Amino acid sequence: MSSDLESAQRRTHDLELRVRYAETDQMGVVYHANYLVWCEMGRTDFIRRCGVSYAEMERAGISLAVSELSARYHAPARYDDVIRVRTTLGDVRSRMISFDYLIVDAVTDKRLVSAQTTLISIDRSGKPVALPAELRRLLR
Amino acid sequence: MSSDLESAQRRTHDLELRVRYAETDQMGVVYHANYLVWCEMGRTDFIRRCGVSYAEMERAGISLAVSELSARYHAPARYDDVIRVRTTLGDVRSRMISFDYLIVDAVTDKRLVSAQTTLISIDRSGKPVALPAELRRLLR
Amino acid sequence: MSSDLESAQRRTHDLELRVRYAETDQMGVVYHANYLVWCEMGRTDFIRRCGVSYAEMERAGISLAVSELSARYHAPARYDDVIRVRTTLGDVRSRMISFDYLIVDAVTDKRLVSAQTTLISIDRSGKPVALPAELRRLLR
Amino acid sequence: MSSDLESAQRRTHDLELRVRYAETDQMGVVYHANYLVWCEMGRTDFIRRCGVSYAEMERAGISLAVSELSARYHAPARYDDVIRVRTTLGDVRSRMISFDYLIVDAVTDKRLVSAQTTLISIDRSGKPVALPAELRRLLR
Repeated sequence: MSSDLESAQRRTHDLELRVRYAETDQMGVVYHANYLVWCEMGRTDFIRRCGVSYAEMERAGISLAVSELSARYHAPARYDDVIRVRTTLGDVRSRMISFDYLIVDAVTDKRLVSAQTTLISIDRSGKPVALPAELRRLLR
Repeated sequence: MSSDLESAQRRTHDLELRVRYAETDQMGVVYHANYLVWCEMGRTDFIRRCGVSYAEMERAGISLAVSELSARYHAPARYDDVIRVRTTLGDVRSRMISFDYLIVDAVTDKRLVSAQTTLISIDRSGKPVALPAELRRLLR
Repeated sequence: MSSDLESAQRRTHDLELRVRYAETDQMGVVYHANYLVWCEMGRTDFIRRCGVSYAEMERAGISLAVSELSARYHAPARYDDVIRVRTTLGDVRSRMISFDYLIVDAVTDKRLVSAQTTLISIDRSGKPVALPAELRRLLR
Repeated sequence: MSSDLESAQRRTHDLELRVRYAETDQMGVVYHANYLVWCEMGRTDFIRRCGVSYAEMERAGISLAVSELSARYHAPARYDDVIRVRTTLGDVRSRMISFDYLIVDAVTDKRLVSAQTTLISIDRSGKPVALPAELRRLLR
């Protein structure tokens, strides 16, 4: 594998999940805010794969809080569909980190939702602090 | 007002709410687990009306964790319906407290769900501890 | 009341709510996706106040589906806080409608979240259709 | 494998999942109502493994609505834990079906929650109807 390809792959991560009944609403599709939960699962899994546990990071006193998000809804996901969340690392700065997401139907590859989030690193009192050095090192 | 009636009224509390779109599922009715969120709103409001803030209680290190619950579903609530949650205090013991709930359509009085929960008083480490004396006094 | 003021008031709507325990996460604040549920409550209430029931609109076969959203998180809401959601009507076009939201602490007026959503009008099969004439008329 | 064992195994089904951040509350553990969502995932997966898709069943006009549930909470699940939901088929009658659930920590086997649900088979208007013959046959 070429190092370019490796590098590209290190910056994206795919997560699959099956749509839960609880995630639908009476329009018969997934409720719009629930896609953002999937984005969070995507970025947490991304971080875990880099070798950092977000759960441990929080126990050590650092949380990543969403400071900005945007989403475009192209087509709806439905109950029982298998979904792929492709998470791509964006910027990594001293106190913030951003991710892009592409949510598709895992069977048909149909594009469902694209989204972006920016997160800031905060301590237990909610004050912005530097991202853990270990995390920044691993993400680079 | 007779003291019997006062006493009866002190033991029950009514809360009204409007069904949110996010609370429905693709069956076109409220998702079954969401009625339990309304029960929690009912008991928290009950406690607040007694003169105790559950939020302050938690900041002081005591939480009430659900240890048992049961529910019977008689008829569904739908989006935009106005709902009444009638919470009735059950047992108050040294480390536990129980409540009964009757959820009805506020317009038609139709019975939707009846439920019961038992809660235990725990400290920050999750260990059972005595209910705050102030809360027990107020509930009696 | 001057007609300018009336007009300004017709374009904004305030909704108050109390933060539910179920809406918090282990960071001790409201989970970020739940603010979008409050935005939906705001716009639905806005539409109701104009004299249209969104529930009836859906029964008649027209739904408003979120096609785009963005949000900025300024400060967190906490359990039991009383929150005000100020919804402002944006654009009204033949098949779409947009709203802006400002979510503040109702006691301190502290700004918590600002958000925007664009919705498109769809029929039962998910195909874009014109907004109901009655709704467009009332919103103008 | 003996037919007794096969038979026993046909009546239980294990599902694993990882706790989502969105499922926690400010007590630092999974919000009590969310375990019921996992129970639903367990029974839906049980039915799928029998060769019936619940999604198709609903498209054909039959839904399974929860009519009764009970749960006992033994110990909390936490963010990022891997959880096993063991679903056991209970009664199958003409219009109802019941399941038992045991939710454990998949790593330590610690018992977290035990629960039971009864579901009734309803048509699109909410009227109780017989369970699809195919489903009853497969469950026996």
